[in-house]
Amino acid sequence: MAPRWRRSAVTAGDGAPPARLPSLEVIGVVRSAYATREHTPVQSALNPSATGVLEVEARFSAALEGLEDFDYAWLLSWLGRPGDPPPDQVPLRQVPFLLRRTPRDIGVLATRGPRRINPIGLSLVRILEVTGSTVRFAGVDLVDGTPVVDIKPYVARFDQPDGPVACGWFDTVALDEGSTPASLDPTR
Amino acid sequence: MAPRWRRSAVTAGDGAPPARLPSLEVIGVVRSAYATREHTPVQSALNPSATGVLEVEARFSAALEGLEDFDYAWLLSWLGRPGDPPPDQVPLRQVPFLLRRTPRDIGVLATRGPRRINPIGLSLVRILEVTGSTVRFAGVDLVDGTPVVDIKPYVARFDQPDGPVACGWFDTVALDEGSTPASLDPTR
Repeated sequence: MAPRWRRSAVTAGDGAPPARLPSLEVIGVVRSAYATREHTPVQSALNPSATGVLEVEARFSAALEGLEDFDYAWLLSWLGRPGDPPPDQVPLRQVPFLLRRTPRDIGVLATRGPRRINPIGLSLVRILEVTGSTVRFAGVDLVDGTPVVDIKPYVARFDQPDGPVACGWFDTVALDEGSTPASLDPTR
Repeated sequence: MAPRWRRSAVTAGDGAPPARLPSLEVIGVVRSAYATREHTPVQSALNPSATGVLEVEARFSAALEGLEDFDYAWLLSWLGRPGDPPPDQVPLRQVPFLLRRTPRDIGVLATRGPRRINPIGLSLVRILEVTGSTVRFAGVDLVDGTPVVDIKPYVARFDQPDGPVACGWFDTVALDEGSTPASLDPTR
């Protein structure tokens, strides 16, 4: 039987947090047809036929071995920009792009938006081809030049809950293919 | 029609990578019943009935508003340890825990293991309760004390590919509930 969590057992194990986390390594860069966030589709699933290329640093190309046998992968990217507020000044409640027409504040950790405390993006992409240090993929929600910090193979057994699941405020909005922040902006 | 990627269009847009990424903010810490990585189940989906608690920093609690309406969420965690090799010295080919009995080297970006170039963990957890700055969840693959760097709501429309998908070497191994690095080690 799986051990149960006990409130008394909170002494940190070997996962005790370091005082400060090291900074991330850029392992590659995405090349896409999109030059600005406002005109980039908000989710790869809403832009499944567009293709992009991940150019991994040549020194890391051996780390891709085996990835070609997967249909899908997660790209973890860095969505931060020069001029972004520091983590402790990011607005904690925001109107997500998808609610721009019916504005409502949502806690940023209950959104998928890019203006996060740690601006890490999570994109599910379909792998088309892995050649050397290059990954061609379908499903693009990243601006050209976006740094990638990790790639993980999609594993259905791990990444797919059983049955239908409640998805909060997303269940109340239209999730139209091709939606971009600009197309969702009622003032434009 | 979605614009297509063109090799000539590689001038970086507003997603141009900064020279060096800022370090991550710890937004909270996981409390679990597991004290060491060797004895922690390797995936939350393989340990669905165990429960854990995410203690978010009180200053970020407003960012959780709305999360309680989701059945599942992604926890992005920091799996690095003092003494880990720097990013450019992480072994690029590794025997994953799940292949310990039938050892085979896999590119680390085609694994879900913790010894990554950027040791970010991605755990799909079932949300049980959100109270103030505390998230109680089911499905535990994190050592007690693991820092969390992001939380994202699970959105089926974004996170679930259509139909059955190929999952590379994972399709060739048993994915037994409760598997830990120790239980998968043939020398023990």
